[in-house]
Amino acid sequence: MYTPEYLKDFTQLVFEKMGCPKDDAIDIANVFVKAELRNLPSHGMIRINDYFQLWEAGRINTKPSIKIVHETPGTAVVDADGAIGIVGAIKSMRIAIDKAKNTVTGWVATQNSNHLGIGSYYAMMALEYDMIGITMTNANPMVAPTNSTERMLGTNPITVAVPSGEQADFVADFSTTPIARGKLAVASARGEQIPFGYVQDKDGNPSDDPDIMKKGGSMLPLGGDLAHGSHKGYALGAIVDIFTGVLSGANYGPFVPPFLAYLPMPDTFVGKGMGHFFGAMRIDGFSSSEEFKKRMDNWILTIKNSKPIKGKEVLIPGEIEKRAEEILLKEGIKVLPVIQNDLKVMARKLGLDFEVKN
Amino acid sequence: MYTPEYLKDFTQLVFEKMGCPKDDAIDIANVFVKAELRNLPSHGMIRINDYFQLWEAGRINTKPSIKIVHETPGTAVVDADGAIGIVGAIKSMRIAIDKAKNTVTGWVATQNSNHLGIGSYYAMMALEYDMIGITMTNANPMVAPTNSTERMLGTNPITVAVPSGEQADFVADFSTTPIARGKLAVASARGEQIPFGYVQDKDGNPSDDPDIMKKGGSMLPLGGDLAHGSHKGYALGAIVDIFTGVLSGANYGPFVPPFLAYLPMPDTFVGKGMGHFFGAMRIDGFSSSEEFKKRMDNWILTIKNSKPIKGKEVLIPGEIEKRAEEILLKEGIKVLPVIQNDLKVMARKLGLDFEVKN
Repeated sequence: MYTPEYLKDFTQLVFEKMGCPKDDAIDIANVFVKAELRNLPSHGMIRINDYFQLWEAGRINTKPSIKIVHETPGTAVVDADGAIGIVGAIKSMRIAIDKAKNTVTGWVATQNSNHLGIGSYYAMMALEYDMIGITMTNANPMVAPTNSTERMLGTNPITVAVPSGEQADFVADFSTTPIARGKLAVASARGEQIPFGYVQDKDGNPSDDPDIMKKGGSMLPLGGDLAHGSHKGYALGAIVDIFTGVLSGANYGPFVPPFLAYLPMPDTFVGKGMGHFFGAMRIDGFSSSEEFKKRMDNWILTIKNSKPIKGKEVLIPGEIEKRAEEILLKEGIKVLPVIQNDLKVMARKLGLDFEVKN
Repeated sequence: MYTPEYLKDFTQLVFEKMGCPKDDAIDIANVFVKAELRNLPSHGMIRINDYFQLWEAGRINTKPSIKIVHETPGTAVVDADGAIGIVGAIKSMRIAIDKAKNTVTGWVATQNSNHLGIGSYYAMMALEYDMIGITMTNANPMVAPTNSTERMLGTNPITVAVPSGEQADFVADFSTTPIARGKLAVASARGEQIPFGYVQDKDGNPSDDPDIMKKGGSMLPLGGDLAHGSHKGYALGAIVDIFTGVLSGANYGPFVPPFLAYLPMPDTFVGKGMGHFFGAMRIDGFSSSEEFKKRMDNWILTIKNSKPIKGKEVLIPGEIEKRAEEILLKEGIKVLPVIQNDLKVMARKLGLDFEVKN
């Protein structure tokens, strides 16, 4: 078990060693450890090594000069200058929030960025200002549009955070695919087949093979097959790609560069780096915050108190993650032995140490 | 076959007879006939009788005084005064577009409204101003949240329209459920079972019974079951309900009143009528419109030209509807005999005639 403080301090040192300014390294450490605390380890400590390898390959800029390249009072396009996605995302969301303070709503499209970790971190930054926060990002292509055999879209997640009163805030954070890609790796490692509706083979036939992506297959959009509305998941992923990629001047669709250093860069670029989109909307643009939060509390309690399926619990988006955070803050954070080893090897290369623990 | 003009003129007269001002009746006729032309007949002429019955039951206001009840330069809450949803929606979207003209983006939440027909009509109003248009609406409860047995959310559709250059505009318009409710009625009429993943029975068990809604069952969110990401469809439907219902001060969740006159009104109201949300974002808040449209054309061609599954075609959201419109404008609009009869009966009550055709 690790304390959040230990992991934060370690992560900060790692990114400082890679050349990040101290404030950026602190932001990065906060986001990685927040992912662990919210029990989203697929976006936590395991990703640090990926960033290290991108840095070694010269594919990431730890001293970015992040700039607004197009602006109106309520909107902006930010060039993240090849920054670590977290750094570009935090700066962009701060700009969206500052704009919303002045003009009620603020909207920022970000180009030339990288993987941003958990989208909920940025959307939730809006909550303390009584704003609704929105994050979207595109990602390297994994998903075939309905009726296509080719990987043309990323898993393109959306996050919406809404402030409430006495109830826990509403934080919806989901990819526009039935599952995260990591689930395929887990099934493969266990030698298990996967349910139909997650992936298709290279010709577009239904598949239950967790290794199908290595054989020219592709992930399916949310909905799975056409009969179950995959065209709606495809439309949603497309909207995210247009807001994050086309609007910002980043790469989009199949041109989004991969996050992993061992994957080659695409031959063609149609924009700069990866793209994100951030929104901040002041509640008082629509209603007094106090009244809204009362209504939001009632919305949450109404849904929450609906009759559950026997043995199940009706959950509000964000509830599981908040519950995990309360527990892990007390009990500490588990890091898998294989990840501990990777971090130790990486730390040594940077002249640091990572303590291996049970 | 009917000409669009015949159906428009008839629909205008019907709503004028119900007391609508001429301009409102023209708007209403345009939206109903647009639904027919885009080959979305479930939102076309068949719905006129539903509105007539609501009007007979005194549950709709044909002479509404639609007002802004909360406002900032870029946002507003509109009280539609119990109007026909189409009238409230067109006025609200015009306000969003006017606000965007002044402050780059415009956002309107609408309370005290009714069923608005095809959401794409309003989102597409933004296109001629080089804006992205967004429509959301809540609807009466049909859908159970993941792990719940109760109908707590509507099918809560989302529309996003994005301008392009030489290619057809991108118009995504989809409910946050695997299927529209109408598909259940069609399967039932044919005596067919439906695929699992559309509905569940009153205890939350998977069901293939198209009549399950009459037996205490509920529709499932996009994704279908939890293994296929129904919690994501639930989150998306919840976001729509919060933006349209909670933000606007309309009813939300299980309190949204039904659109059909023979269904009783809920015992409790938590707000006013049904809720919508409209957005308009000027492209030039982010990029020159010309450059954006070139990128958008390239996005469309890239996806469109990806390799199709054998015998299938990769479609861009909105493409099928646009194609239908081109054909039906030439060939005319078919109206099912049963709907023709309903319209004829209704017309007689209003002192009008509806011509029955083959």
